[in-house]
Amino acid sequence: MRKEKDLLGEKLVPKEVYYGIQTVRAIENFPISGQKLREELIIALGQVKRASAIANRKLGLLSEDLANPIITACDEVIAGKLTSQFLVDPIQGGAGTSINMNANEVIANRAIQLCGEKLGDYSYISPNTHVNMSQSTNDVFPTAIRIATMKMSEGLLQSISKLIKELRKKAKEFDHVIKVARTHLQDAVPIRLGQEFASYQHLIERDRNRIKMSLRHLLKINMGATATGTGLNTPIEYREIVLNELKAYSGLKFELASDLVDATQNIDTLAELSGALKIMAVDLSKIANDLRLLSSGPRAGLNEINLPSVQPGSSIMPGKVNPVIPEVVNQVSFQVIGNDTTITMALEAGQLELNVMEPIVAHNLFESIDMLRNVIEVFAEKAIAGVTANEKLCEKYLKESLGLITAVNPYLGYEKTSDLAKEVISTNKTVSQALVDNNIVSEEDIHKLLSPYELTKGGLIGEEIFNEQKN
Amino acid sequence: MRKEKDLLGEKLVPKEVYYGIQTVRAIENFPISGQKLREELIIALGQVKRASAIANRKLGLLSEDLANPIITACDEVIAGKLTSQFLVDPIQGGAGTSINMNANEVIANRAIQLCGEKLGDYSYISPNTHVNMSQSTNDVFPTAIRIATMKMSEGLLQSISKLIKELRKKAKEFDHVIKVARTHLQDAVPIRLGQEFASYQHLIERDRNRIKMSLRHLLKINMGATATGTGLNTPIEYREIVLNELKAYSGLKFELASDLVDATQNIDTLAELSGALKIMAVDLSKIANDLRLLSSGPRAGLNEINLPSVQPGSSIMPGKVNPVIPEVVNQVSFQVIGNDTTITMALEAGQLELNVMEPIVAHNLFESIDMLRNVIEVFAEKAIAGVTANEKLCEKYLKESLGLITAVNPYLGYEKTSDLAKEVISTNKTVSQALVDNNIVSEEDIHKLLSPYELTKGGLIGEEIFNEQKN
Amino acid sequence: MRKEKDLLGEKLVPKEVYYGIQTVRAIENFPISGQKLREELIIALGQVKRASAIANRKLGLLSEDLANPIITACDEVIAGKLTSQFLVDPIQGGAGTSINMNANEVIANRAIQLCGEKLGDYSYISPNTHVNMSQSTNDVFPTAIRIATMKMSEGLLQSISKLIKELRKKAKEFDHVIKVARTHLQDAVPIRLGQEFASYQHLIERDRNRIKMSLRHLLKINMGATATGTGLNTPIEYREIVLNELKAYSGLKFELASDLVDATQNIDTLAELSGALKIMAVDLSKIANDLRLLSSGPRAGLNEINLPSVQPGSSIMPGKVNPVIPEVVNQVSFQVIGNDTTITMALEAGQLELNVMEPIVAHNLFESIDMLRNVIEVFAEKAIAGVTANEKLCEKYLKESLGLITAVNPYLGYEKTSDLAKEVISTNKTVSQALVDNNIVSEEDIHKLLSPYELTKGGLIGEEIFNEQKN
Amino acid sequence: MRKEKDLLGEKLVPKEVYYGIQTVRAIENFPISGQKLREELIIALGQVKRASAIANRKLGLLSEDLANPIITACDEVIAGKLTSQFLVDPIQGGAGTSINMNANEVIANRAIQLCGEKLGDYSYISPNTHVNMSQSTNDVFPTAIRIATMKMSEGLLQSISKLIKELRKKAKEFDHVIKVARTHLQDAVPIRLGQEFASYQHLIERDRNRIKMSLRHLLKINMGATATGTGLNTPIEYREIVLNELKAYSGLKFELASDLVDATQNIDTLAELSGALKIMAVDLSKIANDLRLLSSGPRAGLNEINLPSVQPGSSIMPGKVNPVIPEVVNQVSFQVIGNDTTITMALEAGQLELNVMEPIVAHNLFESIDMLRNVIEVFAEKAIAGVTANEKLCEKYLKESLGLITAVNPYLGYEKTSDLAKEVISTNKTVSQALVDNNIVSEEDIHKLLSPYELTKGGLIGEEIFNEQKN
Repeated sequence: MRKEKDLLGEKLVPKEVYYGIQTVRAIENFPISGQKLREELIIALGQVKRASAIANRKLGLLSEDLANPIITACDEVIAGKLTSQFLVDPIQGGAGTSINMNANEVIANRAIQLCGEKLGDYSYISPNTHVNMSQSTNDVFPTAIRIATMKMSEGLLQSISKLIKELRKKAKEFDHVIKVARTHLQDAVPIRLGQEFASYQHLIERDRNRIKMSLRHLLKINMGATATGTGLNTPIEYREIVLNELKAYSGLKFELASDLVDATQNIDTLAELSGALKIMAVDLSKIANDLRLLSSGPRAGLNEINLPSVQPGSSIMPGKVNPVIPEVVNQVSFQVIGNDTTITMALEAGQLELNVMEPIVAHNLFESIDMLRNVIEVFAEKAIAGVTANEKLCEKYLKESLGLITAVNPYLGYEKTSDLAKEVISTNKTVSQALVDNNIVSEEDIHKLLSPYELTKGGLIGEEIFNEQKN
Repeated sequence: MRKEKDLLGEKLVPKEVYYGIQTVRAIENFPISGQKLREELIIALGQVKRASAIANRKLGLLSEDLANPIITACDEVIAGKLTSQFLVDPIQGGAGTSINMNANEVIANRAIQLCGEKLGDYSYISPNTHVNMSQSTNDVFPTAIRIATMKMSEGLLQSISKLIKELRKKAKEFDHVIKVARTHLQDAVPIRLGQEFASYQHLIERDRNRIKMSLRHLLKINMGATATGTGLNTPIEYREIVLNELKAYSGLKFELASDLVDATQNIDTLAELSGALKIMAVDLSKIANDLRLLSSGPRAGLNEINLPSVQPGSSIMPGKVNPVIPEVVNQVSFQVIGNDTTITMALEAGQLELNVMEPIVAHNLFESIDMLRNVIEVFAEKAIAGVTANEKLCEKYLKESLGLITAVNPYLGYEKTSDLAKEVISTNKTVSQALVDNNIVSEEDIHKLLSPYELTKGGLIGEEIFNEQKN
Repeated sequence: MRKEKDLLGEKLVPKEVYYGIQTVRAIENFPISGQKLREELIIALGQVKRASAIANRKLGLLSEDLANPIITACDEVIAGKLTSQFLVDPIQGGAGTSINMNANEVIANRAIQLCGEKLGDYSYISPNTHVNMSQSTNDVFPTAIRIATMKMSEGLLQSISKLIKELRKKAKEFDHVIKVARTHLQDAVPIRLGQEFASYQHLIERDRNRIKMSLRHLLKINMGATATGTGLNTPIEYREIVLNELKAYSGLKFELASDLVDATQNIDTLAELSGALKIMAVDLSKIANDLRLLSSGPRAGLNEINLPSVQPGSSIMPGKVNPVIPEVVNQVSFQVIGNDTTITMALEAGQLELNVMEPIVAHNLFESIDMLRNVIEVFAEKAIAGVTANEKLCEKYLKESLGLITAVNPYLGYEKTSDLAKEVISTNKTVSQALVDNNIVSEEDIHKLLSPYELTKGGLIGEEIFNEQKN
Repeated sequence: MRKEKDLLGEKLVPKEVYYGIQTVRAIENFPISGQKLREELIIALGQVKRASAIANRKLGLLSEDLANPIITACDEVIAGKLTSQFLVDPIQGGAGTSINMNANEVIANRAIQLCGEKLGDYSYISPNTHVNMSQSTNDVFPTAIRIATMKMSEGLLQSISKLIKELRKKAKEFDHVIKVARTHLQDAVPIRLGQEFASYQHLIERDRNRIKMSLRHLLKINMGATATGTGLNTPIEYREIVLNELKAYSGLKFELASDLVDATQNIDTLAELSGALKIMAVDLSKIANDLRLLSSGPRAGLNEINLPSVQPGSSIMPGKVNPVIPEVVNQVSFQVIGNDTTITMALEAGQLELNVMEPIVAHNLFESIDMLRNVIEVFAEKAIAGVTANEKLCEKYLKESLGLITAVNPYLGYEKTSDLAKEVISTNKTVSQALVDNNIVSEEDIHKLLSPYELTKGGLIGEEIFNEQKN
């Protein structure tokens, strides 16, 4: 063990580790979730620290002797070589100070080692004075959250695109499958299964747009803001340099926030992204609910579609297969909705110059992005891509459906059609039969009038027939 | 108009009204919801003021000359005669001060009038000095909320009892209706429709217990606590007198909170009741969902039960009838869940000696109780009471159901039964047929084995049959 | 009373009213909230019905004889003359069918009356056949919600602009007021009160942008979709005509949704607006919290700013004035957050071709918009506009503040500065004193170094001083 | 690799592992959270399987030859020896089937191995037929959740007791520290710091009661219910035997649910516990907020109390120490609130005979219990236990406080006292001074009247003084 010292006194630190006294304190103070920091966040911290060291070197604040090993250490963080040294719990007090200090200490000690000096000898390279130079947790952590979020969202957007592609395929594949639409779970007018899948596709496309829009709003960073956005202790020119460095390195179109005080205290754009994710989650849940309903049965349910069988469904009922993929979509949806509540509470708890609840916000946002990505991937591949239609049954339902009577409503009027509907119900006839039996439409015309495909295309289908009748 | 004066200066008040300057200010300050205070809250305020005046009279703090007209005015408030004078918005800043002052002013002015003095002449009877004597908003308002809540909950509990009664009736009525149970919306083993309704009944009974338990916790009041629970400015004996007066008058078993500081700053028991209401709301929503699902169709849905028709369902599709009562149950459920979120936020916002967010808590709690009472009444009468079963269809589904195969699982083992299940699916046979065709069960025994009613009663149905086979 | 008849049978309707049998049924079925429909929604329904009648007339579906009185009746609905006839509860089952039918019946009967016929004689003009011609609840109601939302949002946006204006004024007015910034509620580095208000302004500007963006997404309507988006029973050309009519009449840039099936079943854009309102609500709550904190005291609090006194604060503590306006802002914020939960639940409950929970969504969305508008107006006028600063106290806090020591951190390094900070704390000195006493900065330079205004402008303030020292 | 086979076909399984084909499928199907099952849940599964095997043996359903190795394997699961074999993601579709099958397969294979047979040779001991005998996921999983919850809650209750103990200590320690109470963050009447901590203590005691009550409701289990609560395929006597076995083994007072259908489909009692945890979380957050506020400063804040310093607070501001422990309490609180939202959504999604969303419910409930336990431990030890009071400052605030004027309100009346309050404010005097200067109370009596300790004990402090004056 080696001894380290800070404002509050001395502490022992394991001899060979790169982290230091403040990390040790944080580990003791926050044994909360038992989880690790996201790899993407650690990498993002490495990028921020790297860009900052380069800027400080350029500004003459940090000599080459110190800057270069710091930059090398940052490169190693980015390459994932020092990930095991990041040990603070993602849920922590202090607005991310412990995360920032964990990074500062790891980078400092690795840089010290690269220089051939002794781990923990901060007189050579100091985590605060040198690695954290021109920075504060309050600009480093929000910026790192944004970088990590952008990175993680790439995977999410890919999953979403895959889902959209599969939905589009099914929309085409099922374009000819005509079935009964249901409103209020009650039989309504004809629709095509393809129209249903196209509708899902367009919904998810809007969800994607909302997420993309929110991500664009996240591109404003506050490097150079330091503690409260006033930029104290950091040269004004630093902002531009570090920004450009980050943009070049990440390939992301970051901008400097126009009001750094605002950008340092407010995290509404993180909540905005969470809100966009929440709506997507809810929409996914709606689609999952629909699929579970349409595939219910196989014999005592709707059974209009089949989901791919991915595992036996019951430990006691042999032969049973359950819609487990849509079910897990529902559950992830509920998690993302709950996470948004957490983020909302945290957003409300911001006070004055800082929102100290950022760690829980980042933790929940990362979880939402990650789980959504995972579940959408599975949803697209293991459910949507393999959906098949039971066309015959769809057709049967449609023929028997009461909703077909709607087609004569414009010609007979609502009141007369209602009376006819009553008869259809009480006599248990089909609508076709009843129309013919009542001499409303001739046997010849009935197929024209109730042509299922035509009925799904809109317009006044029976106009010609009834106009002729009138004449 | 008459002129009145307070700490902040003068204001004009309509000449003939009973409310005064502070009510006028509150009306100007809080044009928020446009809604009125709940009648039950106004009555509760009347009860609190009345009990307090009696206690003050008994303690010699308030002379008969002043106490008696104040008490008469309170009686009028309780009788609803002065309700039109309560004009502050239920959503307001100030932890209920404006509600309390509205009551103080109305009672003072009515008492002044009863004494033949001029409205607004507070030198005679003062809203603060006399009507509010020994009180603070911080004990009056929480106590009035509790009284109003208890009162409103009586109606809710009656509705719940009605619902339970209707569910119990249906549980009996449908005890012989055997149908397929569904897990994951997939066909499972047989169950009786009566068992399903009994299950709803027991669920709602637990909900009722939770609500009753929470109501019991609400019986602790903090009269005599004054501003912060220390009881400053109020004789210690006052507490007991006012408590007894309130108990006698309301018939409710109120107790004095053992820690008045705690009781003045914390409103966790209100949140507890909201939580109990929320769970009941969610459970109602689950039942409503089930009923909508089971009554789906009529021809392209499950159609196992029929809900009473209460209104035509579509402006365009004649003959369509929708499950509008369960649908409104769902919607009220969502409102109550949302209200609980609001109350949770408000609970968290309590600071130090007071939770100033009590008005929004009361507003949402009252709304939840009231809407639940209304919707449960409608649900019991217009939906549950009139549910009928389509027994033949239930029977048909069951016969066709794959889930019946579960009955041979204990004897054939899961693996063999799975193979058999596969065959049933691929050949589109019934389970009965397949068992007979495969010589697993004799034609004679099959009815014993798959006797639907027996299968819903549990146990090893086929034991005898298969034991004989073994021997 | 007059007798009317529908699918389910006969009912008595009060003789002179314009509404009819389906409204009567709905009143009986949904005694839920006791509230009225929003005036803006009724007007929007009038607009939709009017545009539709014009389109039907143009298409030759509705003769002039029928179309003209219908249009006149619609004009009266829009003018508010028939508002008293809209009696269905805003919370109702049936996806808005009862609201639509209430409108259909009122317009039909008024048109019938205009033609000199008898109220209730639907053989002349039928609510369904004629007033609802080419329409379904499922396109009428979503469209009316959007029109009403756009209209109500105008008022909200005006309030927001007022708030932004007041914040901007204060940002300028307080630009010279230097004070201590606080992070974690702990003393941090200097900031200007003006910077704090500018930060609020920029936050609210982002909120406004989010709301505007969401409103733009609401401009897509689905008129012509009829029951499920397939457009059955309505000529394809109707869509364009009715759209143009609505655009011309309302002045709003509506577009036809590109996928009507999707547009009929999904209400994600309503949830998106609710989400934008929620974030604004949370941000307002944060600002309200800050103001309550900064104005705490007057003697045992921070007391850096004064809020205008708008009403006496206590019924028992004379002289006390409370921050009631920010407090009501908090409470409305909690309501809007809760309403968003309700809307989220309702969004998730959409099934297949329709989200039948639209009524509760509309109810909550309207309430959120309305309450936010009201409270922001009050917040701007009665709180923000009148904030004053206690400059002397701000200055005093700053001088005593430990945070000033940060200014020497870049020159002494974090470790040495920490030791110095310890000394400052233990000796109860000011930072200035300690720096001078320790010969770190000369008495002459100390004012340059710790010039409060300079410190709020960012950069390396002490560079010159310490560079000189080094040389 | 070894080959295994199920209903859906064959799969390769790593040769030496105890889990089997269904676990492999689940791993592929649910790559969602990347987290592991809670150890307590795995142990609980072991207990359930063990009790079941014993019952099956006793009933003669399972021979000793098979039962004994199964029981031994269960013992190893309970001892944690097979934990590494539980690899399914806690978030999964299928209502826990994959968790149950993971357990069945691990136990079966370990039992097979104990018998000297080959892993995967289920003809010897089958996961479904033998290990899962008399069971279904739908009784096993809910029961295991309850056992794990009870176990985890023990630790939570211990933490809570520790917190209560520390709060009680502080209530005593600070019983003499008199300070200004604050309502609306504005100076109110005197209170003792000890009263504030006692109030926290009593609040947390109520929270504990709510949690205990909810845990009692969780003691009802549904073993023997099998798939849907009808108990098909399991001897009726099994229920009692397995119940008693579980009670004896766990020491917990489990009971058999009186309606097994209800108990199998409804998880309201899990939501009830989540609700109780939520209210405790909110209450903790309120206390954390208070402590952060009271310890704000050190120089530009309230600074009435000191929290222990547990880590340096800033990477840029040397000497700054932040209230990180209360901050992490807030954040965990927000997580628990969010988790309750997730659980609420999942509760609402139950359908017919089963709530398939149980995995996400268990996952969130476990997280809430675990995080609360961890953070309460830290809160008690690292924050509450070390709080110290700045008595002098408390006293100073109190003396200067305007709230003292309340003490003369009963004698002068509200209106006169208000005028006096105005004077105190405008002249910047203390209340004492003003009372003496205005000859309201003599210099001699003022100390009696405004004796801070007396003022915190309630009652009419000045009665004697003012009565004498009157006489």
